[in-house]
Amino acid sequence: MSVHPTTLKTYGSRVSLHSNPTAKRLLEIMERKQSNLCVSIDVTNTAEVLEIVRGVGSKVCMVKTHADIISDFSSAFADELVRFSKELDFIIFEDRKFADIGNTVVHQYQSGPLAIASWAHLTNAHPIPGPGIITGLSSVGLPLGRALLLLGEMSSKGNLATGEYTKKTMQMAKEAGREFVVGFIAMSRVDPEEEEDWLMLTPGVGLVQGGDKMGQQYRTPRDVILDSGCDVIIVGRGIYGVKGGKDAMEAEAEKYRRAGWEAYEERLKRT
Amino acid sequence: MSVHPTTLKTYGSRVSLHSNPTAKRLLEIMERKQSNLCVSIDVTNTAEVLEIVRGVGSKVCMVKTHADIISDFSSAFADELVRFSKELDFIIFEDRKFADIGNTVVHQYQSGPLAIASWAHLTNAHPIPGPGIITGLSSVGLPLGRALLLLGEMSSKGNLATGEYTKKTMQMAKEAGREFVVGFIAMSRVDPEEEEDWLMLTPGVGLVQGGDKMGQQYRTPRDVILDSGCDVIIVGRGIYGVKGGKDAMEAEAEKYRRAGWEAYEERLKRT
Repeated sequence: MSVHPTTLKTYGSRVSLHSNPTAKRLLEIMERKQSNLCVSIDVTNTAEVLEIVRGVGSKVCMVKTHADIISDFSSAFADELVRFSKELDFIIFEDRKFADIGNTVVHQYQSGPLAIASWAHLTNAHPIPGPGIITGLSSVGLPLGRALLLLGEMSSKGNLATGEYTKKTMQMAKEAGREFVVGFIAMSRVDPEEEEDWLMLTPGVGLVQGGDKMGQQYRTPRDVILDSGCDVIIVGRGIYGVKGGKDAMEAEAEKYRRAGWEAYEERLKRT
Repeated sequence: MSVHPTTLKTYGSRVSLHSNPTAKRLLEIMERKQSNLCVSIDVTNTAEVLEIVRGVGSKVCMVKTHADIISDFSSAFADELVRFSKELDFIIFEDRKFADIGNTVVHQYQSGPLAIASWAHLTNAHPIPGPGIITGLSSVGLPLGRALLLLGEMSSKGNLATGEYTKKTMQMAKEAGREFVVGFIAMSRVDPEEEEDWLMLTPGVGLVQGGDKMGQQYRTPRDVILDSGCDVIIVGRGIYGVKGGKDAMEAEAEKYRRAGWEAYEERLKRT
């Protein structure tokens, strides 16, 4: 397979290829912190979330949340998370996986107990409902400088985001334009014939290959960044699931940061 | 097109074809109240939701919610909704459209500020993540007697839930079995060659055909129940968006209930 031109550019040099402020800031952070690591925090109370953020925030370019699993979620917690995102220099990515019609996602993004658009810089959506989902989310997020990823592929076993479905996702993003949609959740570069710069974020990453009992499948940072040409590795239980408290967690995050960054440096050396 | 055998059976006679308690109760309610109408309540505070429930609860077999758009959602509100579901005899359907991997949906269904599994009899999921999403949701919902619908088709313009995707959804449901997955969100019967009894619930229904600015498309109760052979019509803004207060809303719900029921009676007369 030929080398995708985007994978030969530094993160820093790609900043100017984006107009969306969140995409720009992400690439700047990645360059500045030498990190393409996103930590996925799937714990169920705010104290635990903040403990993980304090432990690994300096190592990552992004913190991924599932606000709806946090029992004591509050706007004060969201404020605290935003404060940390400035202090420790990372993007907040709420992994909401919006998947409803335009009129509904407007409310889901803007309103309700979570008010996602008010604190999350980045969120994502499945393309299944058609282009109306982008129109709806964009009407809320674009004026706030937020950004959206489409789910073009997934990491779980037997998932249906493959082949024609993935191509249609890419097509939908192109038709929407890169003002608000800045990239994809994907396992590989889903933009093989694209000249525009898209961000590829990849979940299901572990230092060893494997899986869980519910169909999740793990690949290594090197698989994802070097072999598949993606831009950000998303690591969850591999980091916050480690035993030994805050120090052990920070050390584990550093291992992932280094593995991801070394794979990135190696890919830049190709021609 | 030949007539699907399921569409020649009364709702009451289909009760015994299901083992899931929520599916059984739904079919019993439909028969008892002569209603295949589900009202979709997409308003953003609990007072408004409860006003609509009081206004139309006696006319419907089901109330569909989006808990995450309700700003003042609380467990006390959920209790009140459950109380109404007993008093006015309807099923509560939280239209969550789960769309994540198994491990994540377990938390999303069970935990967090919404604790959906604790109050919603029925919920739904996109099949995209693969069978792990059913495994995850089932591990929470089945012990509680809850039920799940898969989204096999959608009502919005340009949606990707078509053709092979829809067939794979049906296949995934069959492989999971009918203990927890009891049917589909669909625009037509997506079980053409199936002998098992599946429930088909159809959104995007209005008394006149049309659409909104974000890609939603409307069909009539007769289109859905008679021509497409689906079982439940889901009506939102067509009912609660009517002007004139509680009486007007109730009268509008009665129009839909009657239109849906007459289409059902007409379909039973075919051979």
